[in-house]
Amino acid sequence: MKLHFDQELAKLKEELLRMSALAEQSVAEALKALVQRDSALAKKVHATDDSLDKLQMEIDDCCVQLIALRQPKARDLRFIVMTMKISAELERIGDQAVNIAHRAEELNKEPLLKPLMDIPRMAEKAQSMIHDALDAFVYEKPEVARQVIRRDDEVDQLNRQLHRELTSFMIENPQTITRALNLMNVAHNLERIADYASNIAEEIVYLYEARDIRHSH
Amino acid sequence: MKLHFDQELAKLKEELLRMSALAEQSVAEALKALVQRDSALAKKVHATDDSLDKLQMEIDDCCVQLIALRQPKARDLRFIVMTMKISAELERIGDQAVNIAHRAEELNKEPLLKPLMDIPRMAEKAQSMIHDALDAFVYEKPEVARQVIRRDDEVDQLNRQLHRELTSFMIENPQTITRALNLMNVAHNLERIADYASNIAEEIVYLYEARDIRHSH
Repeated sequence: MKLHFDQELAKLKEELLRMSALAEQSVAEALKALVQRDSALAKKVHATDDSLDKLQMEIDDCCVQLIALRQPKARDLRFIVMTMKISAELERIGDQAVNIAHRAEELNKEPLLKPLMDIPRMAEKAQSMIHDALDAFVYEKPEVARQVIRRDDEVDQLNRQLHRELTSFMIENPQTITRALNLMNVAHNLERIADYASNIAEEIVYLYEARDIRHSH
Repeated sequence: MKLHFDQELAKLKEELLRMSALAEQSVAEALKALVQRDSALAKKVHATDDSLDKLQMEIDDCCVQLIALRQPKARDLRFIVMTMKISAELERIGDQAVNIAHRAEELNKEPLLKPLMDIPRMAEKAQSMIHDALDAFVYEKPEVARQVIRRDDEVDQLNRQLHRELTSFMIENPQTITRALNLMNVAHNLERIADYASNIAEEIVYLYEARDIRHSH
């Protein structure tokens, strides 16, 4: 019975990793659709998001069943509860990627407002935050998760910087307003993705250090 | 033992209701700070948000302990898991209220851009969505929760309408850009609050009808 339960937990971990790979993929696709001005790719993001939604529901069901059937205690129970929370964050990342894809489709209809530099940098940071958070989970390294939380500030700062720059564009030339608003939206979505990755990292610190660090930094 | 467990569940429900009242309050305070141009009130929203954060952590701990000690099955287990999810949404509503309060402080420094009409209407709808979702929870009425989900579209529509109107303002008069951006932000925060209320309503339909309706509408 014990071995079987361990296998079930290992399977759950695998599903969650599959979900995180998909979440990263959805962000990468949305960004590529924007940077390469490829609206066909933007549509593909929806399919990736559908897979994320489906996986989350499966993981949720699996977690509730595991708790009901196996009556786990202490660390196993915490692992299962955290898996549900992490999968909820990953699902939200997919939603943000869909928003970015929509903005990309709008932006691809008009000439480029300015060379995209800060946005790809923000995306790169956000993606690596998702990736490292899940690494921290798999290799049980709360210190890696703590680094992820700190990197959230860098994304916030890039977002604020871009917001100021785009506001200046708008004031100088009202013809740029629609495009600037769309770019602000993309940056805002990336900032939220970084927030979700940071939430995941907080869950992981809690899981492995059994300390609730939410709202403490 | 059974009676005791029922009492624990009743207490958990009470805590969640206290949290939802606080979430509503945070939105009401943030809006009042904006509409009445009262920056002192805007600061009060932070204290309400702190209480929300604290309550969420308490509810989380309480849920994990209940599962570990009582090994609940079926409906009780679902109730506890849903309570964790609902409290996470309520906590996020508090974060959005803080964002609105920040925007209110900015907006209060300059003359009013235009009479506020759509934003208070959006806020009213969002608040009543939170309230009705929790009513659906307490009185076990999934049909009320379904109505909440449908009302999310009305808030989305108001947000889009306001976005268009504010974009026109910005194009016609670049001096309005900063204020219009702040108002767009407030509207966007309210739209997210309505989303969270709608998420709560989905959890409630799932709890009482044992059907996962996420991603199906």
